[in-house]
Amino acid sequence: MITEMLLGTESVIILKTERTGLSLEKKLMVSLCEKNARSFVTEEAFVIMKQRAIAGQDLLWSGKGPGAEYLGWLDLPESFAESDLEKIETTAEEIRNTSDVFVVIGIGGSYLGSYAAISFLRHRFYNNVPRSLRQGPEIYFAGNHFSGRYLKELIEVIGERDVSVNVISKSGSTMETAVAFRFFRQYLEDRYGREEAVRRIFVTTDATQSPLKDIAEESGYCLLGIPSNVGGRFSVLTAVGLLPIAVSGGDIRTMLDGASAMRAHLLREKDCNDALIYAIYRNLFFEQGKTVELMACCDPCLHHLAEWWKQLFGESEGKNHLGLFPAAVDLTTDLHSLGQFIQDGSRIMFETVVRITEHRADEAVVVTESLDDFDGLNDLSGMTMDEMNAKAFYGSTMAHTDGGVPNLLLSVPNKNADSLGQLFYFYEYACGISGYVLGVNPFDQPGVEAYKRNMYALLGRKGYEEERRRLLERLQETDRLQ
Amino acid sequence: MITEMLLGTESVIILKTERTGLSLEKKLMVSLCEKNARSFVTEEAFVIMKQRAIAGQDLLWSGKGPGAEYLGWLDLPESFAESDLEKIETTAEEIRNTSDVFVVIGIGGSYLGSYAAISFLRHRFYNNVPRSLRQGPEIYFAGNHFSGRYLKELIEVIGERDVSVNVISKSGSTMETAVAFRFFRQYLEDRYGREEAVRRIFVTTDATQSPLKDIAEESGYCLLGIPSNVGGRFSVLTAVGLLPIAVSGGDIRTMLDGASAMRAHLLREKDCNDALIYAIYRNLFFEQGKTVELMACCDPCLHHLAEWWKQLFGESEGKNHLGLFPAAVDLTTDLHSLGQFIQDGSRIMFETVVRITEHRADEAVVVTESLDDFDGLNDLSGMTMDEMNAKAFYGSTMAHTDGGVPNLLLSVPNKNADSLGQLFYFYEYACGISGYVLGVNPFDQPGVEAYKRNMYALLGRKGYEEERRRLLERLQETDRLQ
Repeated sequence: MITEMLLGTESVIILKTERTGLSLEKKLMVSLCEKNARSFVTEEAFVIMKQRAIAGQDLLWSGKGPGAEYLGWLDLPESFAESDLEKIETTAEEIRNTSDVFVVIGIGGSYLGSYAAISFLRHRFYNNVPRSLRQGPEIYFAGNHFSGRYLKELIEVIGERDVSVNVISKSGSTMETAVAFRFFRQYLEDRYGREEAVRRIFVTTDATQSPLKDIAEESGYCLLGIPSNVGGRFSVLTAVGLLPIAVSGGDIRTMLDGASAMRAHLLREKDCNDALIYAIYRNLFFEQGKTVELMACCDPCLHHLAEWWKQLFGESEGKNHLGLFPAAVDLTTDLHSLGQFIQDGSRIMFETVVRITEHRADEAVVVTESLDDFDGLNDLSGMTMDEMNAKAFYGSTMAHTDGGVPNLLLSVPNKNADSLGQLFYFYEYACGISGYVLGVNPFDQPGVEAYKRNMYALLGRKGYEEERRRLLERLQETDRLQ
Repeated sequence: MITEMLLGTESVIILKTERTGLSLEKKLMVSLCEKNARSFVTEEAFVIMKQRAIAGQDLLWSGKGPGAEYLGWLDLPESFAESDLEKIETTAEEIRNTSDVFVVIGIGGSYLGSYAAISFLRHRFYNNVPRSLRQGPEIYFAGNHFSGRYLKELIEVIGERDVSVNVISKSGSTMETAVAFRFFRQYLEDRYGREEAVRRIFVTTDATQSPLKDIAEESGYCLLGIPSNVGGRFSVLTAVGLLPIAVSGGDIRTMLDGASAMRAHLLREKDCNDALIYAIYRNLFFEQGKTVELMACCDPCLHHLAEWWKQLFGESEGKNHLGLFPAAVDLTTDLHSLGQFIQDGSRIMFETVVRITEHRADEAVVVTESLDDFDGLNDLSGMTMDEMNAKAFYGSTMAHTDGGVPNLLLSVPNKNADSLGQLFYFYEYACGISGYVLGVNPFDQPGVEAYKRNMYALLGRKGYEEERRRLLERLQETDRLQ
């Protein structure tokens, strides 16, 4: 844990890790600063909660807690087989060579991680710059809703250009994804013929069994497995996330190394690490009656990471009528939207600010001197926008603390694959602990079934006849009552 | 108000309105259904709150409530001068003719409305399809944060293509916007020379006075005024929103007509209209202890409308430690992310589902019959995805109601400019009422100043010397304490 706010990140010596063989490497780590949160909790409450968090951490490593059959992500960065990694890389290279456009078909954990990573690592306007700058095919996401118009317009984007698709579903039966895949399979077969279509369809699904696995094997599609013991929202460091990230030109090996380093770091500091501290504050604030955790992103590249984070924590903890509602804002963007509420609205939230500490000099934009100082900004000339952003960050966190909103600060060293791998692992690990402290199973999602069952029934699917009758009656009945 | 859920929208006869001369026109209106919310409130509480809402509505029209100096938006759709509208249309046409790329520089209310409208009205992949399909220049938003990298990469998007910029700031002094404008002015002058740069810079600012107005007049930039009595978040139906929307090819006249029709409708139904009902439920749920309102968008085209809505309600009501925190989800997308939380997490929220009722037949995607029924979806063949989306919507709202989350349903007839104009006006009007019921001034935003003051001080700007000294001391002091 780091308490030096102005420094923001911490160098640590990483122990040797099994897969990567990293050894005694000095590394800038993602780190948490609690300075602007500490005054909101008592020392006594902190100590008690810390004991609970350590117990939660122990439960996690013991493999005996609820949902332990889905703990595969814990060792994933270490246990990743070299042959699997090579297959992902080779497949990605093939897609990059044969495709102008790459469509990722998946919902929830099947796309949020790769979307977050590509936004974080690659060109800000990835799909809008020439391929020479982008260095990969254009990438679009589909199969995460039921908009037909979206699919039709996506086909217009593709036009005459060459396209491949990656359908991703752990269960292999998710409706939104299945419908979009049926659509794209038909499109590819119509356009390329059956044989070539086979070479343009890539399937990522449960490695052991799933309907999608059967389809892939029967049809001869390239098949990438998801370990059965890794749930959707924890799967970004499996083929689910890694294939699309590699297609975009992201450095997936370095990302896994970052995750490995974070794992080693957290393991070494079991008594007091930043993931523990994060889990402690989340639960302390929840017990104080806070209902919302706001992830405040200090750089546009973090926007989609927040969407991934929302699923991770919302779906892991939002059960048994418990949990902090995960919301996100972009800074300084949303200081001109939700800033007023954060500063002075209902006192229901705490804020975790995520900030990139180091910026590449060649990406800096300096405020230039203007001869006529037409806008009165010459007093800032010579300053980089990153420096201005830092001032805005300090200014807003102090203002929010003054307004009664506790702040945690997560410092991310760089916009690179190493930092991102660390971040992913950090959050997953903290989420496991935090959920156990809250007293829920952080690895299931029983509530997601409720809308699915109703939807299947209303769609008239087999096996839901009785449910359908009841729902239709209910719809009519409430209408009659009005 | 409509209570027939299966119908979803209501035809009303619109009275003659001043500007548009609409008369006895049968029109499908945006409408609210409260069926899935009613059982969560008592009749008595509803009646009492209704009296308060009607008092709030009266206060709004009286022009004597707090913030009444910013009520210009109330009559805007009616009072819009034809000459101003023509100027916007001519300017937009000029930009469309001279530009491959159009950059909108603004933050908060200066971009959220046009972003929402362009996303709602235009091609889903607006910037990614050929101009023949898009029918307008590519449009990017800037000046809403301090990322230098973003600006550098945006320049890469522009490349050699022709570009114009529209800098938008009511006050004319917003820092994020000013810095980006300085950057783009320099870029345009370097690239085109001073004279041509003048023709490529369009300024939207307070019509009466602002530093940006002075700059525009001195430099000869095309100047579009924002009425002084319309605040940023209520300004989408001024030049702020209308110019970018018109540049994208959006039909701004029809949008204004939609707003006019909604205004006439609400005025005619002063005793009981849907905006009142919305304000009533918001305040009832807030008094029940709900802390979050979730806007659930049933179509991807609504995603950015939710961002506009967040600012509108968050900035209007989030003061004096009051207000519902506005959050948004996309359906069914986020049922696989936050769905678990909605279904079974902390019971802190109610949901307002926004749904498009009519879908154009030529945009429909039908599930096709598959010879081998490889995925077992043949039972759905012949069904459109819009029909599936409707089942998912019914399924999820019933599931959420069962889970203890009250549902309001806002039905939007079509994805067109008429519906959108109605929606904008509906929300603004409901927000004014809701804020007055809550007991706040819905038209100021004093809390936004807090971070700005700190930022100016840390940037070392003139007039903030004392504040700067205190902040720096505080930063050092807390560091020492650690």
